[in-house]
Amino acid sequence: MLIVKKFGGSSVADAERINNVADRCIEDYSKGNKVVVVLSAMGKTTDALLNRAQTIHPNPPRRELDMLLATGEQTSVALMAMAMARKGVPAISLNAWQVAMHTTSNYGNARFKRIDSERILNELDSGRIVIVTGFQGVNRRDDLTTLGRGGSDTTAVALAAALRADACEIYTDVEGIYTADPRIVPHAKKMKEITYDEMLELATLGAKVLHNRSVELAKKYGVTLVVRSSLNRQEGTIVKEETDVESMLVSGVAVDKNAARIAVLGVKNEPGIAFRIFDLLARHNINVDVILQSIGRDDTKDISFTVDKSQAREAVEALRENQKRLTISEVKEEENIAKLSVVGAGMQTHAGVAAKMFEALYDVGVNIRMIATSEIRITVLIGLEDVDMAMRAVHDKFIDA
Amino acid sequence: MLIVKKFGGSSVADAERINNVADRCIEDYSKGNKVVVVLSAMGKTTDALLNRAQTIHPNPPRRELDMLLATGEQTSVALMAMAMARKGVPAISLNAWQVAMHTTSNYGNARFKRIDSERILNELDSGRIVIVTGFQGVNRRDDLTTLGRGGSDTTAVALAAALRADACEIYTDVEGIYTADPRIVPHAKKMKEITYDEMLELATLGAKVLHNRSVELAKKYGVTLVVRSSLNRQEGTIVKEETDVESMLVSGVAVDKNAARIAVLGVKNEPGIAFRIFDLLARHNINVDVILQSIGRDDTKDISFTVDKSQAREAVEALRENQKRLTISEVKEEENIAKLSVVGAGMQTHAGVAAKMFEALYDVGVNIRMIATSEIRITVLIGLEDVDMAMRAVHDKFIDA
Repeated sequence: MLIVKKFGGSSVADAERINNVADRCIEDYSKGNKVVVVLSAMGKTTDALLNRAQTIHPNPPRRELDMLLATGEQTSVALMAMAMARKGVPAISLNAWQVAMHTTSNYGNARFKRIDSERILNELDSGRIVIVTGFQGVNRRDDLTTLGRGGSDTTAVALAAALRADACEIYTDVEGIYTADPRIVPHAKKMKEITYDEMLELATLGAKVLHNRSVELAKKYGVTLVVRSSLNRQEGTIVKEETDVESMLVSGVAVDKNAARIAVLGVKNEPGIAFRIFDLLARHNINVDVILQSIGRDDTKDISFTVDKSQAREAVEALRENQKRLTISEVKEEENIAKLSVVGAGMQTHAGVAAKMFEALYDVGVNIRMIATSEIRITVLIGLEDVDMAMRAVHDKFIDA
Repeated sequence: MLIVKKFGGSSVADAERINNVADRCIEDYSKGNKVVVVLSAMGKTTDALLNRAQTIHPNPPRRELDMLLATGEQTSVALMAMAMARKGVPAISLNAWQVAMHTTSNYGNARFKRIDSERILNELDSGRIVIVTGFQGVNRRDDLTTLGRGGSDTTAVALAAALRADACEIYTDVEGIYTADPRIVPHAKKMKEITYDEMLELATLGAKVLHNRSVELAKKYGVTLVVRSSLNRQEGTIVKEETDVESMLVSGVAVDKNAARIAVLGVKNEPGIAFRIFDLLARHNINVDVILQSIGRDDTKDISFTVDKSQAREAVEALRENQKRLTISEVKEEENIAKLSVVGAGMQTHAGVAAKMFEALYDVGVNIRMIATSEIRITVLIGLEDVDMAMRAVHDKFIDA
């Protein structure tokens, strides 16, 4: 078997944990498997490097920032190779350009274009464990790039696809994917399996276990993922195209507390206005979610939507600057809101999920402000103060406690 | 003008010093020069990385150690590029493989084989200051290598040669090359100029300002070096093939306190024995210096030589293991010794230098244990306890106080 194993920053935060990870990898290697290990930077290294850059430049050039950040994973992989050598196992560390992992040019948010598997396969054939820097790549100018937060998951999946690995294991500090955040819903259950689509919805909606892009990539190349803990031996959650058990009506409940709602009131009810509003926001790189349009008074309409809290101010300013041109009478912003979503592949074939969700919210007296749905997801916008209670109520309505 | 400027670790130890170095480079750039900057790792970074490796492996694989150490200079160059960007100057950082700086394969002590100048010249032509990682290279396997301590000087000289630079400036924490260590000889003088050969002798003999290999390389390619302080604007010392002034009888006095003397007594007086002794040491990679051979009693001979203190134990053990084969009756070791040398291109045409040196030592009652000479150098072995006094006496005998 060829196994790709990815460990995040907290799993390699110090010498003891590095040795622990080395042991786990050597275990698979000793059974005759070929093992590729993908590592993030140690502990809070990336944040420390970002802070260091800040002392020099408040808004450093992205190319140079990537050059700086790339040292983090290189440190991890070199130390890991030393730890394995100390345990008598031949291992070699490779950084992104040595592999080579080719990406697009956009620093800080690059995407993989092509991965050479030759060097890794050669090293594996020589009987070595191969340890690869996560999170980074190299563009066509031979410059270092990074993939953005959580990019090491994406590296692992991309490598698993390129190497046609038999397994891709994502080690993290939780035991798998839960039906809801266990810190809010104590009796949330760990899922045995989940589909790519469900995982994508959950990841988009605030479940932080897997990086969204890594799931997209896994789906695209059919890479089966296992999410499990680096701290114990519990079985994790398998992420794949179709789950073996009959799809649950609802497989998970997710919450996103980083949303802000923007309301654009009194817009002229004529064709093209909505397009011009969202085109303006797109040109500011503002991601818009959960759009609701309603007829206002006097042949005008009101449009509401949510954006990430960090982008709310920029969105409001852009809209106000263009208020006249866009025939807007008023722009309102509300920050004390949250998105609560239920996700489940079973929704496609079962009716009544929405009604059941609304019932759960009604039972605990939570007011719904907006609703949006996809084939396998229902999202409601509710007050931030209600969200934990609402999550528990909805979770218990669908999932056996 | 194309100028290569090299700054050591203490010159880029923190944000303030990085900004200071950036200003000095921008000054040259603003006058219309093309500027290439070579940097070491910040402050004590390399030592910190070595210690970190030690927590994982007491004797880490050299390849992985180089992979780890290479992050040090990469951090420096990225931060320097940010500092220059902050000051509105276009700059780009490049690591060794981006340049590319090809070296031999021996990790930890690699030597340059070939340097591509294309990328650097392109970036210079685009109007950028180019900032290059010192101390490191890439071998034919695409693995990172390091050049050994002081290797950033060598990087600067190699780049200056490859780019046919008009100047190569080595910035350090002293103002130049002195006639003796100013900490021991307070009235030591800064030299205006010194020849490569003199510098080589001084560097070999313990003067720590320039890395020996960088001087060899400068001599080989005729790169004129300027050694000066990064902390002030004082003129430094120029290192070149021939000095413009008439050669001084003695240009500098150097001390090496890291020597040990080994005496091999009672060796059979027959051909090939000396060869076998030094061949044995060579195979242990032990560098031997200042060899003295004398006739002992009974048709035997005694051979004495000095080695670096750190290699003394290994040398003694190797000799004792082969004592019988090498017909040695006794191996003795003495550590409380030091080498004191005078260096000067003028010695080639002036007689009496040795006599003058011995007179100076006689004046202060210092006993000479061994003597060795080259065309431009006289070295004596004396007691460690006498060395500071002896250095002052010899310095003042040759150089105007």
